[in-house]
Amino acid sequence: MKSIYLDYAAATPTDPKVLDAIKPYFIEKFYNPSATYLASKTVKSDLTQARESIAGWLGTRASEIYFTAGATEANNLAISGIMSKYPHGEVLVSSIEHDSVIAPAEQFNCNKIASTTKGIVDLADLKKKITNKTILISVMYVNNELGTIQPLREIAKLVADERNERLKKGNKMPIYFHTDAAQAGNLLGLHVARLGVDMMSINGGKIYGPKQTGALYVKAGIDIVPIIVGGGQERNLRSGTENVPGFVGLASALDIAQNLREKESKRLKELRELFAVNICEKISTSQINGSSKHQAPHILHVTFPGIDNERLMMELDERGVQCAVGSACSASSVEPSHVLSAIGMSDKKARASLRFSMGRATTQKDILKTVDFLKNLTSK
Amino acid sequence: MKSIYLDYAAATPTDPKVLDAIKPYFIEKFYNPSATYLASKTVKSDLTQARESIAGWLGTRASEIYFTAGATEANNLAISGIMSKYPHGEVLVSSIEHDSVIAPAEQFNCNKIASTTKGIVDLADLKKKITNKTILISVMYVNNELGTIQPLREIAKLVADERNERLKKGNKMPIYFHTDAAQAGNLLGLHVARLGVDMMSINGGKIYGPKQTGALYVKAGIDIVPIIVGGGQERNLRSGTENVPGFVGLASALDIAQNLREKESKRLKELRELFAVNICEKISTSQINGSSKHQAPHILHVTFPGIDNERLMMELDERGVQCAVGSACSASSVEPSHVLSAIGMSDKKARASLRFSMGRATTQKDILKTVDFLKNLTSK
Repeated sequence: MKSIYLDYAAATPTDPKVLDAIKPYFIEKFYNPSATYLASKTVKSDLTQARESIAGWLGTRASEIYFTAGATEANNLAISGIMSKYPHGEVLVSSIEHDSVIAPAEQFNCNKIASTTKGIVDLADLKKKITNKTILISVMYVNNELGTIQPLREIAKLVADERNERLKKGNKMPIYFHTDAAQAGNLLGLHVARLGVDMMSINGGKIYGPKQTGALYVKAGIDIVPIIVGGGQERNLRSGTENVPGFVGLASALDIAQNLREKESKRLKELRELFAVNICEKISTSQINGSSKHQAPHILHVTFPGIDNERLMMELDERGVQCAVGSACSASSVEPSHVLSAIGMSDKKARASLRFSMGRATTQKDILKTVDFLKNLTSK
Repeated sequence: MKSIYLDYAAATPTDPKVLDAIKPYFIEKFYNPSATYLASKTVKSDLTQARESIAGWLGTRASEIYFTAGATEANNLAISGIMSKYPHGEVLVSSIEHDSVIAPAEQFNCNKIASTTKGIVDLADLKKKITNKTILISVMYVNNELGTIQPLREIAKLVADERNERLKKGNKMPIYFHTDAAQAGNLLGLHVARLGVDMMSINGGKIYGPKQTGALYVKAGIDIVPIIVGGGQERNLRSGTENVPGFVGLASALDIAQNLREKESKRLKELRELFAVNICEKISTSQINGSSKHQAPHILHVTFPGIDNERLMMELDERGVQCAVGSACSASSVEPSHVLSAIGMSDKKARASLRFSMGRATTQKDILKTVDFLKNLTSK
């Protein structure tokens, strides 16, 4: 039985070209990039090239890119890195952020921005919650459960307005805007100036690169405090011998993903449309969640009223279809997702919902077959 | 020109068998171990097997092993994890620790234990510096610059005595003993109960495993605070999607290293002896640093009085011999090593010293050839 993998938002297979790119760094080019002989300097220069390549896609300087062991670490570094410098400051995060943003934010004075029922940050609420003590706003680029695209440019505008206000009033407290772009790297542009963000987290494991590789963009001039200290690697922001194969792989994966971006976005948008239309047609009670206007094309979140999502997920699994009852991080949790609560979904409805996330190997046939399984399983 | 690599303490090539073990986890078995379908559970079970294998070598339960992105992170987690719970407590570290122990320790009330001129922790000084506020003692297993083996069992005895004293006096403050075993995994036993430690950091990148993989052993019952929070992986101690290939590789590397341990220790001990005898014979002014009694067999640290170590290192590099002027982490630093200062070595002498570290591919011929180069280069 060929399986139909529909959980690309949880993990992507490493692209074979990425694997080819990283292989030499395990054996032939295994050197510690911080050593000073020639072979090490060559490895260091390959690492620099990886950093430059990532910077190219983000439209930043290489010196603004810091490698981390995954997006969770990058999110922690962004939030603790800024907030621990301002113990009396406030951090604002959306109520639909990933746990790796919410958990570090809650270690400081944290306030949460409401979401609309469609899973989009409520800009009026955000504006209302900015105070003269707000130091950091963190809002994700694409929500990992619903696939909704957040209004980063509009938030950046509010941040810029607040900055101007403070300048006028002589308030010297800075205000920064961070985004977790872990779910955006495959299908959306990452140019930070166009998005208006000061910091951005990216992730290898969700873009067909190696797991536990990531990077944090920090705009030049922003001073942040490391969370892992020691040898002073990554210009003192992330100590520890660099994961050379991992970071070369991250750069290679981002390169491939961004080159495929437009083509894949178009293809997955059509597949998602086909998926949604067929589900609604064949399972008349089903409800598609998220936004029809601001939606990443790879995620389809559906409620099947009256159905137990765990059971449905397992029955699909038995038929070779792999999907998610929630984000993988909280998949084993008994609590319903905080994201679904935040958009006002009842626990009952949340427990009747599944996330399907598509990727490079997903075909039209996979989608139609999945809808057939769903029709049979939900009409029993 | 075949190069002679003598910097195994900075980085080891990945063992081809380790690479074979990790390869399936990039493509076929790429699943997120936290998801709930069968394919993910299989990956989760492989991860559990890796944890059990590591626990076997340490003589612990699998539930006491936490995966981290390298030993630097493990050291940070051990120290911040304990000390942030006891803001008025004190941490004692040796003055010859790696930066990844010293830097996090210095964020708390930290006192340093003196070293003998041979690079062994001064037990009398340690005993003197334990106060009724000491919460944590961190002393490395093998020093990364000199290769000296530290008296862990004796320190464990002092910690046990202090524990008994506190019990008698009704002082309920705990006292824990952590060791950074990053340089010990290839050639020494890691059984934690035999060593008497409560926490131990290990590292993949120094034992022919993948870079930025590591683990922290935390004895059951010790409650520590995470430094990276979010999805709650590693039983809430290290959030972020697990680096499955990395951790499977760490377990495989440790397995190979510990199986080879006795044979390689014997072989390298003989090579080190040959190296030392020949250097002293052919370069009469040279001085071997470290301890003759408590010495790991892979590191030889030598002073060549009157010689500039950076120049000598580069001249050796031109002849195909790769060695280190200090630890790789601080190799690019202009300051002389804090380890050499701590053993009372003058800056002048430190700047005339090189570290040679041997590994699985090092041969007798390599050593004799290196001594010949050294003789020629130092007599110019």
